[in-house]
Amino acid sequence: MSAPSLAPITTPSNGTVPTPGNLFTLDNRVFCCYLFWATVLVAKMLLMSLLTALQRFRYKLLALVPLKLRRKIFPNEEDLFFKNIEVQFDDPHVERVRRAHRNDMENILPYFIMALIYISTNPNQDVACNLFRVASLARIVHTLVYAVYPVPQPSRILAFGTMLLITFYMAAVVALRTLSFI
Amino acid sequence: MSAPSLAPITTPSNGTVPTPGNLFTLDNRVFCCYLFWATVLVAKMLLMSLLTALQRFRYKLLALVPLKLRRKIFPNEEDLFFKNIEVQFDDPHVERVRRAHRNDMENILPYFIMALIYISTNPNQDVACNLFRVASLARIVHTLVYAVYPVPQPSRILAFGTMLLITFYMAAVVALRTLSFI
Amino acid sequence: MSAPSLAPITTPSNGTVPTPGNLFTLDNRVFCCYLFWATVLVAKMLLMSLLTALQRFRYKLLALVPLKLRRKIFPNEEDLFFKNIEVQFDDPHVERVRRAHRNDMENILPYFIMALIYISTNPNQDVACNLFRVASLARIVHTLVYAVYPVPQPSRILAFGTMLLITFYMAAVVALRTLSFI
Repeated sequence: MSAPSLAPITTPSNGTVPTPGNLFTLDNRVFCCYLFWATVLVAKMLLMSLLTALQRFRYKLLALVPLKLRRKIFPNEEDLFFKNIEVQFDDPHVERVRRAHRNDMENILPYFIMALIYISTNPNQDVACNLFRVASLARIVHTLVYAVYPVPQPSRILAFGTMLLITFYMAAVVALRTLSFI
Repeated sequence: MSAPSLAPITTPSNGTVPTPGNLFTLDNRVFCCYLFWATVLVAKMLLMSLLTALQRFRYKLLALVPLKLRRKIFPNEEDLFFKNIEVQFDDPHVERVRRAHRNDMENILPYFIMALIYISTNPNQDVACNLFRVASLARIVHTLVYAVYPVPQPSRILAFGTMLLITFYMAAVVALRTLSFI
Repeated sequence: MSAPSLAPITTPSNGTVPTPGNLFTLDNRVFCCYLFWATVLVAKMLLMSLLTALQRFRYKLLALVPLKLRRKIFPNEEDLFFKNIEVQFDDPHVERVRRAHRNDMENILPYFIMALIYISTNPNQDVACNLFRVASLARIVHTLVYAVYPVPQPSRILAFGTMLLITFYMAAVVALRTLSFI
């Protein structure tokens, strides 16, 4: 802070790198990269809600004309604008989007916390930024091959495993750094 | 920190506002406001768990007297204190509370991360505080009209949309600030 | 930072304790303790995904020999490597693991946020560290008695209640500190 020191940065004799003052600012390139990709993933997750609603309403609107064929996919009674539609829970398209959304919550939300606390260990900047990029892109691919356009199996499991492995790697780094505080 | 400078705060010649040292302290009014309303929302979410349990036990306790009429709503076998109750998953009151709880997870948890990283961009204090207040109150209304006392449709979708729009606005602000770190 | 001051720390005349510069660094023992146990819980949650997949594949692999007895538990059509297996959603072992996983999301994810912002109120170090330890161990016990080896009821509700009470305690502390920013 204040005036930058002219003396070279020296590693203390015990071999640990001194932790910088504050890593959670826009001056930290890693934090900025996290901010950008976390924002993308938050937006992607919220779009899943809208995609679910869209799936429900698509059938709803389609159904306005042929009364008999109308799909019955609204889970709550007050969502039924027409009394002759029954509550139903098993529309396959809606359920697929909801499973993808749940999978997002299971994986992306722990990743948010893990990546945030991983930044506090002051990791190598290039490694950290690339981990954030790969993990985020993998989840976008996961959504595409799961909820938007179903694709045969190895694709989804690879996309799923990519973020999982990255999160486990971050967990290992953080756990090793803080093992003495068990 | 230390003694406050008497010199006026000057914007650097490149036009960017200098980022302050640390925004995640109790000295930052925006962070304190986030703390308060995030706490309220966390408490609200945890009360949903208790509300679900209450719904299950209400029928349980009611059922103690008329053995035949007792509702069978416990999902796990070890939750059945009486052997003649079967496992069941489709009690409408319990399922409604659980859908509301799931909707909370889908929307409030990403909002927590988004609002936290939005603070790091040092937003206008009044705008940020009011966004936190409106978003939190909207979700409380959402729970009331969804899980506690069902109300006809426009109310719930408005409450849902309010936090969704606020989260998207924060995402846009953060993404624009960090676009160069893609 | 730099050289420690020789002057005694004095409480300002208004009675508030001065907040230290930055609590979210590896210099703060409470934050390190949070890092370690949050990492453990993130790893535990991600293992639930793998446990679900394992449950699905266990039956899958077992089923390879006796074609007629093979369990049908894959929710998506593209997961069916053999055409004569139908999509099914109600395998009791898989559903139990998934309920445990959902319960994790409902409780651990809000706890992550709550504990993180609780640190910013600069709590007593021993109290905070022990809260993190007890809450995390309680959730590990919860997973064991729920998803791995089902145990009669009082055990699961005690493990569930422990983290719930700790989260409510943290919420009360934070809310009282920030009540003026409502």
